[in-house]
Amino acid sequence: MDDQLVNMRNIRFMLYEVFDVENLCRFPYYADHSKETFELALETAYQMTHEIFWPAFQTMDREEARFDGQHVAAPPAMHEIWRQFREGGWFAPDATYENGGQQFPLAVYAATLFLFNSGNTAACMYLNGTGGTGRLLESCGSQELKDLYLLKLYSGEWAGTMALTEPDAGTSLGDIITTAVKAPDGDYYLINGTKRFISSGDHDITENIVHPVLARIEGAPPGVKGISLFIVPKFRPNPDGTPGAFNDVATTGIEHKMGLKGQATATLVFGDKNDCRGWLLGEPHKGLKYMFELMNHARVFTAIQAVGQASAAYHCALRYANERLQGREITSKDPTMPPIAIVNHPDVRLMLLKQKAFVEGCLGLILYCAGKADVRKATTDPDEFERTDLLLELLTPCCKAHGADGAFDAIRTAMQVFGGVGYSEEFPVAQMLRDNKVFSIYEGANGIQALDLLGRKVPLKAGQAVRVLMGEMAATLDEADAIEALKDIAAKVRETQDAVVGVTMHLAGVGMSGDVALYVCNASDYLEMFSRLAVGWQLLMQAVAAQKALDAGSNEQDFYQGKIATARFYANRVLPHAIATATILKANERTALDFNPAWF
Amino acid sequence: MDDQLVNMRNIRFMLYEVFDVENLCRFPYYADHSKETFELALETAYQMTHEIFWPAFQTMDREEARFDGQHVAAPPAMHEIWRQFREGGWFAPDATYENGGQQFPLAVYAATLFLFNSGNTAACMYLNGTGGTGRLLESCGSQELKDLYLLKLYSGEWAGTMALTEPDAGTSLGDIITTAVKAPDGDYYLINGTKRFISSGDHDITENIVHPVLARIEGAPPGVKGISLFIVPKFRPNPDGTPGAFNDVATTGIEHKMGLKGQATATLVFGDKNDCRGWLLGEPHKGLKYMFELMNHARVFTAIQAVGQASAAYHCALRYANERLQGREITSKDPTMPPIAIVNHPDVRLMLLKQKAFVEGCLGLILYCAGKADVRKATTDPDEFERTDLLLELLTPCCKAHGADGAFDAIRTAMQVFGGVGYSEEFPVAQMLRDNKVFSIYEGANGIQALDLLGRKVPLKAGQAVRVLMGEMAATLDEADAIEALKDIAAKVRETQDAVVGVTMHLAGVGMSGDVALYVCNASDYLEMFSRLAVGWQLLMQAVAAQKALDAGSNEQDFYQGKIATARFYANRVLPHAIATATILKANERTALDFNPAWF
Repeated sequence: MDDQLVNMRNIRFMLYEVFDVENLCRFPYYADHSKETFELALETAYQMTHEIFWPAFQTMDREEARFDGQHVAAPPAMHEIWRQFREGGWFAPDATYENGGQQFPLAVYAATLFLFNSGNTAACMYLNGTGGTGRLLESCGSQELKDLYLLKLYSGEWAGTMALTEPDAGTSLGDIITTAVKAPDGDYYLINGTKRFISSGDHDITENIVHPVLARIEGAPPGVKGISLFIVPKFRPNPDGTPGAFNDVATTGIEHKMGLKGQATATLVFGDKNDCRGWLLGEPHKGLKYMFELMNHARVFTAIQAVGQASAAYHCALRYANERLQGREITSKDPTMPPIAIVNHPDVRLMLLKQKAFVEGCLGLILYCAGKADVRKATTDPDEFERTDLLLELLTPCCKAHGADGAFDAIRTAMQVFGGVGYSEEFPVAQMLRDNKVFSIYEGANGIQALDLLGRKVPLKAGQAVRVLMGEMAATLDEADAIEALKDIAAKVRETQDAVVGVTMHLAGVGMSGDVALYVCNASDYLEMFSRLAVGWQLLMQAVAAQKALDAGSNEQDFYQGKIATARFYANRVLPHAIATATILKANERTALDFNPAWF
Repeated sequence: MDDQLVNMRNIRFMLYEVFDVENLCRFPYYADHSKETFELALETAYQMTHEIFWPAFQTMDREEARFDGQHVAAPPAMHEIWRQFREGGWFAPDATYENGGQQFPLAVYAATLFLFNSGNTAACMYLNGTGGTGRLLESCGSQELKDLYLLKLYSGEWAGTMALTEPDAGTSLGDIITTAVKAPDGDYYLINGTKRFISSGDHDITENIVHPVLARIEGAPPGVKGISLFIVPKFRPNPDGTPGAFNDVATTGIEHKMGLKGQATATLVFGDKNDCRGWLLGEPHKGLKYMFELMNHARVFTAIQAVGQASAAYHCALRYANERLQGREITSKDPTMPPIAIVNHPDVRLMLLKQKAFVEGCLGLILYCAGKADVRKATTDPDEFERTDLLLELLTPCCKAHGADGAFDAIRTAMQVFGGVGYSEEFPVAQMLRDNKVFSIYEGANGIQALDLLGRKVPLKAGQAVRVLMGEMAATLDEADAIEALKDIAAKVRETQDAVVGVTMHLAGVGMSGDVALYVCNASDYLEMFSRLAVGWQLLMQAVAAQKALDAGSNEQDFYQGKIATARFYANRVLPHAIATATILKANERTALDFNPAWF
């Protein structure tokens, strides 16, 4: 296959053999589904990825989103992608039938999004914002607002965004100053303010764009407790559902970014003529709470973007390594022998294996989370709900931050496999690196994810989330321990788990002693360590499934042996660094904390 | 200062307080120099960097080098930079008076190059190629060739390049197929072949360009032992020194690269009309040996490029962190308090400290090497020559590969400090990241540097190079051990040194057992571990000098305390990962080596 961007065998292995997604159909919510509908979705997504998304990957970068001073034009190729996406009903297949969805499991939907993003992540962002706006309406919108917008969004007739960030309030959302004043004569508020870095903030793909906007109602308390959420359309809907009057949402510019150039990242001014109407979503002052539900979704989506692109880079590098002839075996330097494919050089194999281990381990983590989200949505068992909810709370920041950083590392390694041509924009890997860089920054910078993990999620219910996760890991470890061929890998994962648990308890003591600053100053390292353990665990889970298949007499030796060797590689070469980090964190290292800014 | 890109105090500290470069003037070669001439060079370089190089940084990226199908135009700003560089005599001030140089120490010249590169590394590449071509002529050219070219190059009247890579021979130089056929009627050869990725390969800055070209003389042995080096001008010099007839060196394209867009990276076809003349440099078949001398120079230059830019990124991030207001102290989240500068957030300080530690430690390593090169050039003591030569052999691949990777990491961290605006091309850090990426690829990909270190330099004279370096480190450790305030840092560096020595001996055993593949497959990890030790040692050396200054009653508390804390930070937070790598390497980890390519 010329341009394979993902390994479909691997995706099916994860969905069916590791996570048994068919078993989700036991829940009434997914009862209409089966492997047949899953396969249809995967096949279609694969085809669309390779025939529509990927061919537009470089052209969308070169054509870029354009701003003429008033309006934004999306790259021409985006229009066709949108059309195809609408036809297939891809915006929110997980939504209820009632709301226009197909009650499709997120685990399989996540796999299809992984495919799309491997082909063209800038394009997927237009799509994702729209589904996200719909989800917000579903979770906290009035029936009237839902009637007005939901089907428009889920059908892709209109598009959506997420308007949080302001020029002086990015990470610190509590400082947003966009205002909302209740109109004396209507059910709406007048919105006033500027939002920056709004993905898909303006474009010419749809006739209307619907912005969920964070703003402060007059007299609201300061900080995060005074933020409300509004639905602000670009054009006010007429009663018949057509776009009506312009709603005073002006675009003042788009960012000239390092990557994702096909994406229109806009600065929007709401209410420049004091005629911008917003409709309150849910209750006043609870906007951030609503938005966080969507943000958790967006964070896993960011991980899918990042790892999807890393998968594409890995497969491009792998193909190149199999085709590019250069050098000889290290043990036979005879220059008269023909050169060998570079995949045969140990150093190149090491680079490829690094990528494979990260992509497959982190994809495992993402699909695991998506599967848990399916259970959380469908279960009627309160214990099961609580357990899955805690797992998701804990793992979401890991997926986002480690997904972004690890994917960037993987793509960087892919470029190294390419050598000089990788630095040329003729090959796609340079763009992948440029596109990928933002994932550590947006949807909550990685430092914020780390604070979320260590500052909020780990202490949740006195550490209950960590205990649930460690229990899940223990189950995998017990299975692996019982398999002779995997004992060595299990031992490494267990050693890492012990170190992580140890440092978690140590830090809990630090936190309880009141040294909050020391507790949080190591958050980023903690997240990386924790995520590496999680990835190592996922790879072990895959190795268990692989060994079982081999024991059952499978003839796919290469695939399954590769799975086991990949888990071993990660356990042997990456996990020791997680243990080193645990040692550092246990030493109460506070040089950065105590570093006087005047010393820089 | 608005746009400070380097810390001059830090450069002076290293040159005068850590390395005592004034002491180089004890050698007759440098006898005309003194702190006064050093300061003049540094001051001038600082001024040129900030007034000429840096203002053209972004414009050269946007204007790009252009190719019209026949000729390449350098970005307009490059012409003025070149003029200024010529005026100052900056091409090879280290060369002898006789050859047009100023017998200036490389250590101080390296510091000025560090400055220039912090401002605009794409520009510096035009300059460096020219000095490099001159150096090749100096070291192995006939008097006739030197008379013809040397002053032209060192004065910047003509420019130079380095033409090694071919479309099918990059890393594997032994496979180059460019041919050289002795002309029956002259002192020259007819050159035929294509070279790719030639930095500054063509441009309109100078009236002539001189290419050192690797090619095979008819009947030469295969592989690296049959490669000769030729001087191939774009225009053949007339006897009066003016450029004469076109020498059939055609440009067929320039690369569209991710970064360094102001640089013309050309594909050159030599002898398309069978009329391209080359003059042999030195003896036949020894071309690679000569070229390697230049390449060692080029490798340290690559490190200067990388770390210079990382310095600029760090200082930009530091300034931003001091100016950008966002969030509150973690311990007082009162939203009615004014926001604080982000430098006060521990996570941001950690990110800045990571950059500072790498930039200052790696710059230390570079200047240390440059100082050793000065001694090697000037000493008459054969022992001292041998010791410095071994140190340079060992540390050059570390400077190049770790300089490139560490700088890329540092710039990536700088972008994270900027958050969303860092991803915008309006701020310079995105370009720095794009520009920097190639440094791990060119001048010998980092994997090749690792093979050079572990495969060639470590075993050199039965490990003598390693012993010399460890002796140098021991001297620093002994000094630090005697200082109470530095004992803890010294202990960490010593522990790392022990681990590195241990794994080096272990690997020597592996190599002697004949398992060459296992020995080299861990080369990249070995280089990273080894380099981290070297950087930690350099930072300790700086801490020793800082503590001495404090003990002597200096009132520069902030600067010196910062130095010590930076060394401690690196020892506590980075060196444990070097130790973890040592543990991995000692375990004879061979998953990648044994990974069957069919398993990917």
